[in-house]
Amino acid sequence: METTVTSSTKTVVIGPLQPIVIIGERINPTGRKKLTSAIEEGNMRIVQEEALKQVQHGAHILDVNVGVSGIDEPKMLAEAIHAIMEVTDVPLCVDSADVKALEAGLYAYKGKALVNSVNGEERKLKEVLPLVKAHNAAVVGLTMDDRGIPNDADERLTIARKIVEAAQREGIPLQDVIIDPLAIAVSAYDKAGVDTLDSLRKIRDELGVNQTLGASNISFGLPERTAINATFLAMAVMCGLTCPIIDPTVWEIRRTILLVDLLLGKDEFCMKYITAYRERSDQ
Amino acid sequence: METTVTSSTKTVVIGPLQPIVIIGERINPTGRKKLTSAIEEGNMRIVQEEALKQVQHGAHILDVNVGVSGIDEPKMLAEAIHAIMEVTDVPLCVDSADVKALEAGLYAYKGKALVNSVNGEERKLKEVLPLVKAHNAAVVGLTMDDRGIPNDADERLTIARKIVEAAQREGIPLQDVIIDPLAIAVSAYDKAGVDTLDSLRKIRDELGVNQTLGASNISFGLPERTAINATFLAMAVMCGLTCPIIDPTVWEIRRTILLVDLLLGKDEFCMKYITAYRERSDQ
Repeated sequence: METTVTSSTKTVVIGPLQPIVIIGERINPTGRKKLTSAIEEGNMRIVQEEALKQVQHGAHILDVNVGVSGIDEPKMLAEAIHAIMEVTDVPLCVDSADVKALEAGLYAYKGKALVNSVNGEERKLKEVLPLVKAHNAAVVGLTMDDRGIPNDADERLTIARKIVEAAQREGIPLQDVIIDPLAIAVSAYDKAGVDTLDSLRKIRDELGVNQTLGASNISFGLPERTAINATFLAMAVMCGLTCPIIDPTVWEIRRTILLVDLLLGKDEFCMKYITAYRERSDQ
Repeated sequence: METTVTSSTKTVVIGPLQPIVIIGERINPTGRKKLTSAIEEGNMRIVQEEALKQVQHGAHILDVNVGVSGIDEPKMLAEAIHAIMEVTDVPLCVDSADVKALEAGLYAYKGKALVNSVNGEERKLKEVLPLVKAHNAAVVGLTMDDRGIPNDADERLTIARKIVEAAQREGIPLQDVIIDPLAIAVSAYDKAGVDTLDSLRKIRDELGVNQTLGASNISFGLPERTAINATFLAMAVMCGLTCPIIDPTVWEIRRTILLVDLLLGKDEFCMKYITAYRERSDQ
């Protein structure tokens, strides 16, 4: 199954037979002081720099989240999206916990956006899905609900199915729902990795949808986090991950994505990997 | 399916529900001048050091190959096995292209050895399998024959099936055959990775046997070879690799094995990974 997202000039196709699509995660103030201040000040230069840097490092889509407490998030998300569209033409993922911000972001955006996110909560489904439909967007569905994230893969599949069915009732086609089966810290729960891998596999085999994952939670509290995230990404792609949310400016992570494509026969003459490696060596 | 190999005091169980079993590859003179000289001189101290070092770095089984041209390989392989049994009690993998050397190695070894290797050639099957049976050993079967290594996964499966059936006719049970579907350089043939992964998957799903792989060929001719090998290992385990032949003294490689176990829920409280990480940091 293929999901298409677009900007005014670019189309990105996500699917199991395509090379992995990288969603750049860096435009998100969580844990990032400089970006938080920039957002508070309405300084869009930093946001634009982050956008450009990620595209230079291979991002195919950029996630845009400006969730800082105390700001007018709808206004700021629309401004950020306008600012980013000035400097790059990759498609964007409009990301907010606030439905008003999602709405403002979608109005500002030109193209078929990805919306991040809906989940299995009734309230969320009712608020977000009509907006996704109205803007002909695609949507990320997280496999959690009011009870949290279930460990069991079958329960995550059940939530994924609920999201997909609710979307279809709203007129959003199956291929425009991308499931995020969520990863929690393996240091807190030592079956966290295998539960997420099993969830990816079941959701792929049962629903056939594309899947995303922010892999970095998995390594929380452990040494050599980047290596853990990279290893987990490679394993997750084998189970159905098609468009991870990652920081492509971290070479070990981007390299893993390039190598997984290479080792799955999706890099003719190894040219993508060799070119990225050379550009990096030149920096 | 579980394969058991033993020394006089230790049992190692290889299987999909077990943690990954590391077969240490370093006792092999190919491309290693110091070890080549040591073998030519009959100096077993170097061989013993390599054995101990690999066990300290997590090897569960040691491959022993002393194939240097011009030496009396049967005699030398027996000597090497005696020397290694003096310093460590992990099970050994008796490795030679020379059937006389395999025979001498098996006579010297105390326990249920792994024999490396047989392949789909009639001559090899006829020479090696009776020896494996006579010594109640387990055997590695390479998916190649007189025509070379087929690219196609179905053809590699056909060779694997031929080996398994020949072994069974000889009285060697299915669980005592470990298939090596072989990896060639992705730089020479850009479908080399996916062909081997498909082969692993098909052989696992059709025959259910354990599988080994020397992953390092895959990266020949490309930059950052260790990263390529590590990524490929993680992907290969997802397809049925249960006992890779690797150099555990390379941290990035050993770490990948530890992390794959961790992320598959096979490392309670992450203790194996954390312990290995700490020991490494202390060195």
